[in-house]
Amino acid sequence: MNFKKLADKYGTPLYVYDFHHFENQFNELKNAFKGRKSIISYAVKANSNLSVIKKFATLGSGADCVSIGEVKRALMAGVDRYKVIFSGVGKRDDEIEEALKLDILMINVESEAELNRVADIAEKLGVVARISIRVNPNIDPKTHPYISTGLHENKFGVDIDTAKKMYLFAKNNSSLNPVGIHFHIGSQLTELEPIKEASQIVADLVRSLKAINIDIKFFDVGGGLGIKYKDEETIKPYDYAQAILSTLSGLDVTIVCEPGRFLVGNGGWFLTSVLYEKVNGDKRFVIVDGAMNDLIRPSLYNAYHKIEVITDKNGEISKANLVGPICESGDFFAKDIELPSTNHGDLVVIHSAGAYGFTMSSNYNTRPRAAEIAVENGEDRIIRRRETFEDLIACEVDYL
Amino acid sequence: MNFKKLADKYGTPLYVYDFHHFENQFNELKNAFKGRKSIISYAVKANSNLSVIKKFATLGSGADCVSIGEVKRALMAGVDRYKVIFSGVGKRDDEIEEALKLDILMINVESEAELNRVADIAEKLGVVARISIRVNPNIDPKTHPYISTGLHENKFGVDIDTAKKMYLFAKNNSSLNPVGIHFHIGSQLTELEPIKEASQIVADLVRSLKAINIDIKFFDVGGGLGIKYKDEETIKPYDYAQAILSTLSGLDVTIVCEPGRFLVGNGGWFLTSVLYEKVNGDKRFVIVDGAMNDLIRPSLYNAYHKIEVITDKNGEISKANLVGPICESGDFFAKDIELPSTNHGDLVVIHSAGAYGFTMSSNYNTRPRAAEIAVENGEDRIIRRRETFEDLIACEVDYL
Ligand SMILES: Cc1ncc(COP(=O)(O)O)c(C=O)c1O
Ligand SMILES: Cc1ncc(COP(=O)(O)O)c(C=O)c1O
Repeated sequence: MNFKKLADKYGTPLYVYDFHHFENQFNELKNAFKGRKSIISYAVKANSNLSVIKKFATLGSGADCVSIGEVKRALMAGVDRYKVIFSGVGKRDDEIEEALKLDILMINVESEAELNRVADIAEKLGVVARISIRVNPNIDPKTHPYISTGLHENKFGVDIDTAKKMYLFAKNNSSLNPVGIHFHIGSQLTELEPIKEASQIVADLVRSLKAINIDIKFFDVGGGLGIKYKDEETIKPYDYAQAILSTLSGLDVTIVCEPGRFLVGNGGWFLTSVLYEKVNGDKRFVIVDGAMNDLIRPSLYNAYHKIEVITDKNGEISKANLVGPICESGDFFAKDIELPSTNHGDLVVIHSAGAYGFTMSSNYNTRPRAAEIAVENGEDRIIRRRETFEDLIACEVDYL
Repeated sequence: MNFKKLADKYGTPLYVYDFHHFENQFNELKNAFKGRKSIISYAVKANSNLSVIKKFATLGSGADCVSIGEVKRALMAGVDRYKVIFSGVGKRDDEIEEALKLDILMINVESEAELNRVADIAEKLGVVARISIRVNPNIDPKTHPYISTGLHENKFGVDIDTAKKMYLFAKNNSSLNPVGIHFHIGSQLTELEPIKEASQIVADLVRSLKAINIDIKFFDVGGGLGIKYKDEETIKPYDYAQAILSTLSGLDVTIVCEPGRFLVGNGGWFLTSVLYEKVNGDKRFVIVDGAMNDLIRPSLYNAYHKIEVITDKNGEISKANLVGPICESGDFFAKDIELPSTNHGDLVVIHSAGAYGFTMSSNYNTRPRAAEIAVENGEDRIIRRRETFEDLIACEVDYL
């Protein structure tokens, strides 16, 4: 990838995506489930750009969505409606209604209160709601607390007993059709054992539902497959698939898998240019034109991203903090890393920025959001133009 | 404030601002400096809505800006150009150039490298750049590490010796006019002593500059005045002014003060509606339609906001987590607080959300950003309309 050329052409800060990487990741995972009915449902939240979703749609991907906006993005990008799932702990009435009207594969329900609401709305509309229920298997996924979701102390899903109750309720309600079951224990998972345990627990529940004539067709194992940011040992898709399949003996289900980070994380880079270097006390700072509003993962999760500096300068390497222009000490990309000495205008490449990068970006400090670029077949193209000042005030200016 | 009425009228999630509160805060601070030349320069980053800035402009406020976008907002909202300051550690060339062309009061410079750049650009344009230099007085402000900025280990400003060198350079450069000096040691300050110490250090520097015929006209004490979120003892504006004035004897300077949070923090509320209640294990969750994309302070700084529930239900009070619909455990507004039992549709009022609330909001999970409402003279009006799905895809849809 010729980052320098792209930065010169489109300016910085800039997000760049390698669509071949996305495709390879998708195919590797899809192949791992070969011979079994499976749907890979891309988790749109990781990178919601319409062209990114479209790329996966053309590969046959479904879409895991957590808002009606994400559902609309998925359909607009060409995802087959019968591969679209609407998940999330807090769906508004209008979102449920619209999802039912759009006739997507299923609504993934996360509480009894919500199940009642879906039933009521479906009845009002005179439709039958296909649902799945998210089970919280109470497994520690061993990841960052903010992205760990499989323990009871989290807000996600319901416990096994509640799930059973809910399935019975759904079975006996003519507006509900319980077609799926779902779990997702966390993001950036690097250990297989918790996934296998969770899958086993949920598969056993499917068996006990079968015994009472509730026939689950979609076994949704969530997302969460980790990627290598630094030196993590990651899970191989083949091993992942085998671990899940090993828990499903005797069950004729379609496996649904909702990866986000695995598909796009390492196929994205955030490019930013050096503005200044400075030394305060004995601390060296390299200040770039990108900031926490563009990529908040370091500030929010203390996340590691590999940093690469492209410079002609043949200077010394020394410790530095890589920081943005925002007036908060929390505005940093990396602390105390080895960086070569830089010139104004040198390019800094922040790796593994394809997932939870642009989607979490904001206009803090009235900073326009970066452009997004796709590289495919040796060609680069804009997939989201850089915001302008006018974009930023568009919702306000009529009220001044 | 009739929150229920506003929520019914405009929908939730919603930001509501009390413009009278803004005015009172402004006047209290302005009066504290009575009898001295002073400019209150509202720190736009705290709440950048054009109508909010306009409100302060009509009261005579200046604007402290940290991007060219904020400068444009300030001018558009009617702030006098000679009260506009452009600060920040990382200004791009085009930002410096535009700020010089707009002929604002001064550019606040934060490093030697930047001073060179400003000089070069001013020379190229054939103008003289009025500048101030941000001094880092190496004082511990005793606040959250992410918003503490006055220690050498931070990226902000330059130390006293470097500042002196830079003032000499500026004095001898025909494209630079050093008119100001600046410090800002942190945000949400609740102790007076660090401010006074910093002011003393910087005032002494002004005296030693005077001795070499560098005449500083603007003494910018930054922002940072804390507000009461919970039970903080805050600094009284009168005491604040006195502490600063006590360090300035013999100096004929205009005091510039750049408060953000103090002016708008407690005059803003974030309104959100209850979607569902659920219990997982022994944890109770109240799920609302607002989320971390709307107000990230609890997730990012672990910030406390007072929570009020407006409900008809006469139920029990018990511990709960107040959480949003986003699929991250980090999506919460409060943990383990006492909340009454709620119904679907009950209103939750999150207090002290006027500063660093909307400005930090994002479209994560394809969630449209909330509307913003001003209340003034007993009337409410939209000052930023709610985003639509079409707004969210506007920069992408042409590239699909
Ligand atoms: C329900 C659900 N599915 C899928 C994902 C995607 O996770 P990842 O990007 O780690 O694959 C998430 C992430 O939060 C999620 O909450
Ligand atoms: C230079 C400068 N001035 C003013 C402010 C406003 O701070 P506050 O909102 O705490 O008053 C900030 C906040 O970060 C700042 O960095």
